[in-house]
Amino acid sequence: LSQLAEEIAQEAKAQVFALRVDCGDARSVREAFEGVLSLGPVEVLVYNACEPRADDAAPAHPTPFLAVTPDAFHRSLAVSAAGAFHCAQQVIPGMVERGRGTMIFTGSSASVTGFAGYSDLSCGKFALRGLSQSLAREFQPAGVHIAHVIIDGVIGERRSPTRSSRAGAGDPPLPAAAAAGADPDAVAQSYWHVHTQDKSAWTQEMSIRSPSFM
Amino acid sequence: LSQLAEEIAQEAKAQVFALRVDCGDARSVREAFEGVLSLGPVEVLVYNACEPRADDAAPAHPTPFLAVTPDAFHRSLAVSAAGAFHCAQQVIPGMVERGRGTMIFTGSSASVTGFAGYSDLSCGKFALRGLSQSLAREFQPAGVHIAHVIIDGVIGERRSPTRSSRAGAGDPPLPAAAAAGADPDAVAQSYWHVHTQDKSAWTQEMSIRSPSFM
Amino acid sequence: LSQLAEEIAQEAKAQVFALRVDCGDARSVREAFEGVLSLGPVEVLVYNACEPRADDAAPAHPTPFLAVTPDAFHRSLAVSAAGAFHCAQQVIPGMVERGRGTMIFTGSSASVTGFAGYSDLSCGKFALRGLSQSLAREFQPAGVHIAHVIIDGVIGERRSPTRSSRAGAGDPPLPAAAAAGADPDAVAQSYWHVHTQDKSAWTQEMSIRSPSFM
Amino acid sequence: LSQLAEEIAQEAKAQVFALRVDCGDARSVREAFEGVLSLGPVEVLVYNACEPRADDAAPAHPTPFLAVTPDAFHRSLAVSAAGAFHCAQQVIPGMVERGRGTMIFTGSSASVTGFAGYSDLSCGKFALRGLSQSLAREFQPAGVHIAHVIIDGVIGERRSPTRSSRAGAGDPPLPAAAAAGADPDAVAQSYWHVHTQDKSAWTQEMSIRSPSFM
Repeated sequence: LSQLAEEIAQEAKAQVFALRVDCGDARSVREAFEGVLSLGPVEVLVYNACEPRADDAAPAHPTPFLAVTPDAFHRSLAVSAAGAFHCAQQVIPGMVERGRGTMIFTGSSASVTGFAGYSDLSCGKFALRGLSQSLAREFQPAGVHIAHVIIDGVIGERRSPTRSSRAGAGDPPLPAAAAAGADPDAVAQSYWHVHTQDKSAWTQEMSIRSPSFM
Repeated sequence: LSQLAEEIAQEAKAQVFALRVDCGDARSVREAFEGVLSLGPVEVLVYNACEPRADDAAPAHPTPFLAVTPDAFHRSLAVSAAGAFHCAQQVIPGMVERGRGTMIFTGSSASVTGFAGYSDLSCGKFALRGLSQSLAREFQPAGVHIAHVIIDGVIGERRSPTRSSRAGAGDPPLPAAAAAGADPDAVAQSYWHVHTQDKSAWTQEMSIRSPSFM
Repeated sequence: LSQLAEEIAQEAKAQVFALRVDCGDARSVREAFEGVLSLGPVEVLVYNACEPRADDAAPAHPTPFLAVTPDAFHRSLAVSAAGAFHCAQQVIPGMVERGRGTMIFTGSSASVTGFAGYSDLSCGKFALRGLSQSLAREFQPAGVHIAHVIIDGVIGERRSPTRSSRAGAGDPPLPAAAAAGADPDAVAQSYWHVHTQDKSAWTQEMSIRSPSFM
Repeated sequence: LSQLAEEIAQEAKAQVFALRVDCGDARSVREAFEGVLSLGPVEVLVYNACEPRADDAAPAHPTPFLAVTPDAFHRSLAVSAAGAFHCAQQVIPGMVERGRGTMIFTGSSASVTGFAGYSDLSCGKFALRGLSQSLAREFQPAGVHIAHVIIDGVIGERRSPTRSSRAGAGDPPLPAAAAAGADPDAVAQSYWHVHTQDKSAWTQEMSIRSPSFM
């Protein structure tokens, strides 16, 4: 993680800090933000957390409903929804005080449709969408922009030159899905656009999709 | 609770058991269903849980977001969504085995729209809707009917004769909202209709609303 | 058509009239209702019109967008949406006057999602849904129940005894889709339920789907 | 209209042509595009048509449903939905051929919710949304970006310096609604963003709202 932060810092010629947080744990989030807020107020919060999938620690999707353990279910709600709640509670007071700030929550197709084998993910992502709407209603009049971005499909690899320079000779070829997915730089452009929108014309929800997934 | 069960039993001339369960606690749910399942398979599960409001133990709604404690937030997710997950895991195996059964989850207007001051409720109710859709996709092909009913507005008092016979001379007049709300017997008719629908034409979602709330 | 009316009349031991109307033509609708209203007030209106498909007169679906003629497009809007408007204008005055009545509009999966090759159908069906919501908001407080039923999938053949008695020896076997589709009698049960709901707990929208289409 | 075109041309130092078209008339649209396409291929189509309101020629909103004439209803469908169909048919062949192009359809809160007194508008706007989804599914894989923007609330006056320079001493003060509405330049920024999005991460739908309307 710190290596990635360093790469970004070099590329962007900016100070970058990376903190490891357990989003589902109120205390862990609070402690992280104590450090963050000591540096200054938060201008933008992007909540992009997702339970890792398909590795040793997490079950692959789709998972039959009866194979989802209560722990895994709670974990999914904690990461997708409760973590967003904890983070929002940390940054909103400062944003309201200054009358500005942006919070962007990342959703997926599982935010608006329940799929077989994704009950844990859908619960968490539906909940996150409900949270973003509630917060928008409460805090947009106070000058805090709250948006929900539904990324429908897979985020692929960067296609910018930087990517190829990082990719060594021994890199495996990109899987087809990643090659066809959304370019993360392109997604970031839309997040940036949302952040810089004029206050009279804010986006509360938008979809982003790679046509290769239609 | 047991007094209510007795009243229902007398009125319906049927055996009625009432169990007090903490829906948010997997163990409490599992233990309750051990008792239930020892009586026979479950034909219908109606999941109607809701955090009590506006009494001493629970905050009134609307609650400013910054006044919602992490505990209250977790509690709301636990009651609205995790409890439904726990109950579904208890009854689905038997329903799949027999190729029949009905689960009805009760939602509200907060299931489809986030309102200011209801972030905890919206999170839980959105999540419950996501769960119901996922379960429908996975288990309806196996013969288990899974429906989500969006009750938009307040459930009022019963208007049937029984009600007036129960109401004593000293009863306070009904508040206007209750008088105008949905008759619980009428709501029950729709739940019953959903349960008895022919398998070739199942309802996955329906709204119920008193026109006095339009 | 009159033969079908006769069959229904015999089966139901009731008077049945069938009128052929061009739903998209305000005059044709008005003239038909002059006859209807001379018999008495309308208790229930079920608007179930659909452009015929896949026969000689109508293009099969999916139709490439560039192959949809302006005439076919207008026709689809006229049948799906304008016809419902014309019919509603004929029956609402009487329903409002009597403070009762039911209108049920039939939608489909194309009412809530646009599919490639169904632009004409989606336009008309989306429009019909918007109409039903507007009418519900305006007239439910006046005692007129307005519902939109999303039938997701194919209506199949009746599975009741009547069906087999009508099917002659030379009948072709049912196509698989029809066999798996929703039993029209089962669909009718849900329409009937909507019509007979208590006024305090009306359904504005419900989905109906055969699990074989999930 | 031509005066407005001239103002824009001067401000933008670009060639600007304004054509008056009856969107609901296939022939009128086709003739207009013959002229347009003779200048070169269309890069962006913004379909922003709306029946004028509250003047002598058009009924004010909200209009009681029974006061909406069949002509006014057809007119609303023609302008909101059929016009978009006609325009799309004119520009899509060229866009598909070149494998690029953007179409943006403007919706409103009446695109997703039916309101009492807006049945004509809701029908047309719902239909337009269905059209945009169908076209997106069919043509995004061919490289044509199709988006639907839900502008929820009123477009206000420009707040840029240009505006005040145009406003003379005798100008009436802005009505409160206009002052609080979305700045048209800000809305245009979002349309421009949609047009310039990378093809791997296209927005199909986004909302735009002034927080003063929440």
